[in-house]
Amino acid sequence: MSTIAMPAPDAGIISRKSEIIAALAAILPPDAVISDPEETRAYECDALTAYRCAPLAVVLPRTTEEVAAAMRVCHRMRVPVIPRGAGTSLAGGALPTADSVVIGTMRLRDVLEIDTDNRLIRVQTGVTNLSVSAELEAQGFFYAPDPSSQLACTIAGNIGMNSGGAHCLKYGVTTNNLLGARMVLADGEIVDLAGGGLDILGLICGSEGQLGIVTEATLRILPKPEGARPMLIGFDSPEVAGECVARIIRSGLLPVAIEYMDDVCLRAVEDFARAGYPDCAAVLIVEVEGSEPEIADQIARIRAIADQLNPVEFRESRNADESLAIWKGRKSAFGAMGRLGDYLCLDGTVPVSKLPFTLKRIGELSKEHGLEVANVFHAGDGNMHPLILFDANTPGDLERAEAFGADILRVCVDVGGCLTGEHGVGIEKRDLMTSQYTPEDMAIQMEIKDALDPCWLLNPAKVFPLEASQPHRQRAATC
Amino acid sequence: MSTIAMPAPDAGIISRKSEIIAALAAILPPDAVISDPEETRAYECDALTAYRCAPLAVVLPRTTEEVAAAMRVCHRMRVPVIPRGAGTSLAGGALPTADSVVIGTMRLRDVLEIDTDNRLIRVQTGVTNLSVSAELEAQGFFYAPDPSSQLACTIAGNIGMNSGGAHCLKYGVTTNNLLGARMVLADGEIVDLAGGGLDILGLICGSEGQLGIVTEATLRILPKPEGARPMLIGFDSPEVAGECVARIIRSGLLPVAIEYMDDVCLRAVEDFARAGYPDCAAVLIVEVEGSEPEIADQIARIRAIADQLNPVEFRESRNADESLAIWKGRKSAFGAMGRLGDYLCLDGTVPVSKLPFTLKRIGELSKEHGLEVANVFHAGDGNMHPLILFDANTPGDLERAEAFGADILRVCVDVGGCLTGEHGVGIEKRDLMTSQYTPEDMAIQMEIKDALDPCWLLNPAKVFPLEASQPHRQRAATC
Repeated sequence: MSTIAMPAPDAGIISRKSEIIAALAAILPPDAVISDPEETRAYECDALTAYRCAPLAVVLPRTTEEVAAAMRVCHRMRVPVIPRGAGTSLAGGALPTADSVVIGTMRLRDVLEIDTDNRLIRVQTGVTNLSVSAELEAQGFFYAPDPSSQLACTIAGNIGMNSGGAHCLKYGVTTNNLLGARMVLADGEIVDLAGGGLDILGLICGSEGQLGIVTEATLRILPKPEGARPMLIGFDSPEVAGECVARIIRSGLLPVAIEYMDDVCLRAVEDFARAGYPDCAAVLIVEVEGSEPEIADQIARIRAIADQLNPVEFRESRNADESLAIWKGRKSAFGAMGRLGDYLCLDGTVPVSKLPFTLKRIGELSKEHGLEVANVFHAGDGNMHPLILFDANTPGDLERAEAFGADILRVCVDVGGCLTGEHGVGIEKRDLMTSQYTPEDMAIQMEIKDALDPCWLLNPAKVFPLEASQPHRQRAATC
Repeated sequence: MSTIAMPAPDAGIISRKSEIIAALAAILPPDAVISDPEETRAYECDALTAYRCAPLAVVLPRTTEEVAAAMRVCHRMRVPVIPRGAGTSLAGGALPTADSVVIGTMRLRDVLEIDTDNRLIRVQTGVTNLSVSAELEAQGFFYAPDPSSQLACTIAGNIGMNSGGAHCLKYGVTTNNLLGARMVLADGEIVDLAGGGLDILGLICGSEGQLGIVTEATLRILPKPEGARPMLIGFDSPEVAGECVARIIRSGLLPVAIEYMDDVCLRAVEDFARAGYPDCAAVLIVEVEGSEPEIADQIARIRAIADQLNPVEFRESRNADESLAIWKGRKSAFGAMGRLGDYLCLDGTVPVSKLPFTLKRIGELSKEHGLEVANVFHAGDGNMHPLILFDANTPGDLERAEAFGADILRVCVDVGGCLTGEHGVGIEKRDLMTSQYTPEDMAIQMEIKDALDPCWLLNPAKVFPLEASQPHRQRAATC
């Protein structure tokens, strides 16, 4: 079924399965090692459910030391390790191989320190994204990155994918909000990352489990704004909605969020959540924040920009209920789309001035490939999430969807964008890396991998095209 | 005189001097290679003038290809390369060794692209920091990082040091404003860095010329705010001024800048610039920006915080002239201090809540070491710049100043801060890295260096303590 190849599992490792499990069990608490096939099946995929493979075993440590102990065993026995947060990756970042041990961070759930004076929180990385902000609620602070999966996804996964979210237009993505980290390297060594010398902290954001497992993180926290207000702007053309986004950004305004939903998505959302969205070609949700006069000023300026483009609707929230209603549809968009059938959720970025062109091209490609597409995404920073609808039970449909997706991502790169915004490369976009990078550009990334994970045990066969990584993996096999 | 050792230059390289110069001259324009000792002397130091050593030769390329050609020659002949921007480093980052070739970026001065729609500018990295903003002035945009040396310092140096400046409290430092880069590696290979895969872009910010020479950079630009207004707040105690900073930050306000100057600095500045500063123990300059109501609101809230701490003066700028006057003294502080004699300008960071304690400890250490110290720094982000006054002509004074400086930086690390904010480690803080990092923490940094510069030709003997880097440099010698 699948179009993305994984290397054949190492039969030698699989033949040592019981030995590996025994070695892990010997140094970890009894409930920390899972090897019963009935139970490991829960870890056979992440949110890219088209690809599945149960691992040899799953380890769920509670401390940095337990992670390090498990990594030492895997390193000694040369077993690949698949780091896993909550398994919400849409790019297959946490897909196991049959010869691998999954090390999950979800039981690393302690909040270690809250320091509002210095605007930071230190947590174990298995805490979920939303619970970080929940911890800070009473003190009036929050943690800015807010991926759609924030109820489930962990800080470990956020660091691995350099996660963003709707509110990252103003506050930046994970790398802009990570102040320090404790990481376990492939050989089980524990290192602390901070400022001074080479910025390993910057390097690990978005490293997709290639360099180590981050077990503790110090995160920048922000005071909650005085107030925030969304508005909803409807247009009768996707390109005009895209043009509106470009004009808002060009004007110098910096809303907290500019979200985009097209008609396919709007209809699905209306059926599902009854958010009261208008029936039109595209809707923008723009949120601004600050003091009352500041909010009013920003809304007036955005309204003036929108009015030049003849919106079919301009709805400003007048109270908390209306704000919730405006956001409700957007927040339920992925669930609503799921009811329509299977979909592939893409993730690419384009310069905001190229949004109108890119939306037009996606429409044309949809016709060429004969598959419907819905667009719902973080428009303000040009982070697109086209959802390609397909039927997993129709032979060949997944392959067609993947080919369509690849075409869209190539358009993103062609217009000066990037093939990933916040989902990572994983297995999904592994072979597209060549459209973004020259062999030389990729080589230095793999040399960094060689340096920190010389045996290529951490999440191998991901991120880098198999052909390009072959010499590195081959060399590593003798390590 | 000096307390910081550099390894003995390689006599073998020096004996090949004319051969090396001939090889460089053969592939570069005639005026791009400087080897006359009278002329190379201009490159014998950077702004850490206590340490001087003329290089074998200086290369001043005008294109990425010329940088790559020079790097290929140096790599083939195994000659160390000292990357240099404008030479404004205060930590000895651009100090040559006698067996090295300096490659300067100052002739890479083209502005390649201005794209206000997508809020970016692409430049060759020899353009100065201030000229980037000057290029954008007419369109109403600016580039946020603003180091004190911004009139002279280059974007290449800013990237190498991850430079900040007074206005980085709100807008972040270089790493938060760098969107892409073209870099020449140690072997002359040219790579383009962008998003997707491992974040080499994050890694090179602050890498102090250890990994390559960045020749082109794409920088994020920001629209100029509607308005900005500084205020000056005087206190009769350094600790209380520090407490005021901590309370402003804790309150959730985010001024564009919070600058601190103590009495030693205030007196020097008054003699020099007649800025009309009050005669008190410490002054804060706090600048806020936004629309008029927003500015007024922020000033009122800052005034309320300051009032609780009995300031001896609270002066709000009423017009452009008064704003200039408030900033005039701060901007001339380093020049003013230079008139008092020699000084060592330190650079460390502390959590803002630890500012009062750290200022008190610096006062105590000043008495212990018998040397006067002036404090002038970016208080809002805890980035301290104590200036230790000494007399370069008094034997032993530099060594005492350095010992005092090391004690201050250890205090920064002890209270949870970092031994560098924006000046880098260079040679100055090389041996203090052990107070911040364990051998394991440092080892992974050096393994990254091994990966990208296997022969350790780029700025060797800097950043990492010589003892720790010895095995790496030794292995590299056989490369």
